[in-house]
Amino acid sequence: MTLHSLFDRSAAIGFCVNPLDRRSDRREDFDFIAAQLENPGRSFFALAGDVPILRKQGEDYGALFGAADIESFDNSRQTIFLGLQADDNPVFARSFDKELLEKLAGRPDIEAIDLRSIALRGLVPADILGELGTAKEVLDWHRRHRFCAFCGQETQATAGGWRRDCGNCGTQHFPRVDPVVIMLAIDGDRCLMGRQTRFPDKMYSALAGFLEPGETIEDAVRREIREEAGIACSHVRYFASQPWPFPSSLMIGCYARAIGNTITFDQKELEHARWFSRAEVVQMLAEAHPEGLAAPKPLAIAHHLLKEFAEKGGEVVP
Amino acid sequence: MTLHSLFDRSAAIGFCVNPLDRRSDRREDFDFIAAQLENPGRSFFALAGDVPILRKQGEDYGALFGAADIESFDNSRQTIFLGLQADDNPVFARSFDKELLEKLAGRPDIEAIDLRSIALRGLVPADILGELGTAKEVLDWHRRHRFCAFCGQETQATAGGWRRDCGNCGTQHFPRVDPVVIMLAIDGDRCLMGRQTRFPDKMYSALAGFLEPGETIEDAVRREIREEAGIACSHVRYFASQPWPFPSSLMIGCYARAIGNTITFDQKELEHARWFSRAEVVQMLAEAHPEGLAAPKPLAIAHHLLKEFAEKGGEVVP
Repeated sequence: MTLHSLFDRSAAIGFCVNPLDRRSDRREDFDFIAAQLENPGRSFFALAGDVPILRKQGEDYGALFGAADIESFDNSRQTIFLGLQADDNPVFARSFDKELLEKLAGRPDIEAIDLRSIALRGLVPADILGELGTAKEVLDWHRRHRFCAFCGQETQATAGGWRRDCGNCGTQHFPRVDPVVIMLAIDGDRCLMGRQTRFPDKMYSALAGFLEPGETIEDAVRREIREEAGIACSHVRYFASQPWPFPSSLMIGCYARAIGNTITFDQKELEHARWFSRAEVVQMLAEAHPEGLAAPKPLAIAHHLLKEFAEKGGEVVP
Repeated sequence: MTLHSLFDRSAAIGFCVNPLDRRSDRREDFDFIAAQLENPGRSFFALAGDVPILRKQGEDYGALFGAADIESFDNSRQTIFLGLQADDNPVFARSFDKELLEKLAGRPDIEAIDLRSIALRGLVPADILGELGTAKEVLDWHRRHRFCAFCGQETQATAGGWRRDCGNCGTQHFPRVDPVVIMLAIDGDRCLMGRQTRFPDKMYSALAGFLEPGETIEDAVRREIREEAGIACSHVRYFASQPWPFPSSLMIGCYARAIGNTITFDQKELEHARWFSRAEVVQMLAEAHPEGLAAPKPLAIAHHLLKEFAEKGGEVVP
């Protein structure tokens, strides 16, 4: 864990720790990037499509590969300069065609595992998980943005993999991050959660939705709660944020003070929504709810919103 | 002003008030949108390219047009359903080719004024300004995203103008909102500001920069201050947020507690950066600084960050 985990709520949440020095000021310096690619201390994250490839030794996993390993994979599609480690050694991310998975299938020292499973199973330390999440977000953006949205022509990656330029119309394109609000409405000593049909059985979580053009964070929080559960809210308090690499969101965690308490939930968005007492939330976090109802895992910011509510109750809102 | 201005810091800032009920649940309901387009109470914001067109009567300006006016403009490019007013009358935004400006040039009852000037001159009420900002963001997104970034083919607007679908590869595209952190580093009773060469003479403002994939809000705040001014920071506190329609950002205003105080500013990003005492900030906000140094106008979230610091001093950070 890095220093800032001492004073950030955000730093306790999955994908939130990325201690690399991004050196964004040097990304357009071709000689700098080229020299880093020759640095003997360089290492690489590897993804086949959007699936990370891990090194494996017994029960231990590692996510960083040396240059010899990575070059043996061939058929690379895209390389990103992620930044410098504390010892000034550079870290890159490289994507490969999915065919690489077949090629590596027989190797006992290598395993491809999707990022969500890596996170849930705790296969890599928090800082490596954050760096790997960043790698997936940027590489996946390249995969989904090969063409210029302004003129339709093919674009080229540049700036250490942090930009795509259109040679036809000159437009510069940058990786996209979509702000999402995720929140608990609070009614005295109760909080509001809902469940979507795609959730695991008996799991409830905080409501969430994309922030739209023309909205403040506070307005987006109130709109989503009103649209999804029919509850009007007044005060909103920011809690913490989390990068969420599925594919590329910024989760903005908040509490909102409910004005009403009669739920009318949107059946297209939710299978069910209801109020949970603080005592019930404590049981769910301890995996001891009498009806077996479950809360999200610590990987998700919703878990941390619930944990703070379990500790402080209605004081989480002004 | 709407109710939430009573309890939101965000609501006091330019472009932050948009009281329309967006009815995002009905955007894909073609019959609903079609019926709203026939509603006798409908009204429209009009933009030629990205320049709003205003109605003018003496010194008074209005931004909403009735159906007869808007249809007389012809050559429309794109229509967006913005939502319903409190009386359930629908509001739309419609863009036109820039040629419309020439056609309207002779009319004394109509004036095209760029959005920034409308805001700075206070030509329309806060709620209309917020709605107009939303209109510009979404219409401008259509203009800059006619083609599918995944396959390069032309896309079609749908869902009341809130989505573009690719008929070739099936990808759905949604309006983009770019999160930007904007912040004051705090060193005891002083705050850090910088100036870019493009700023008006003698103006200083809060540092700012785009949040990147894989970052929390707190990490982005610390990275930008370190990169632009060479100052390390520890605790970060969220203050307020603001939609900023130039072209489509979410400004996330924060304070950060500085660890060091020796500034080394990035000369590519900034012309100058320095510490300002609380007393100096008070003078700048009152437009009474002895050297004539100026702060941003109330339109900008930076003004409100400075105002709170002027009132509370070092207490703005934990």
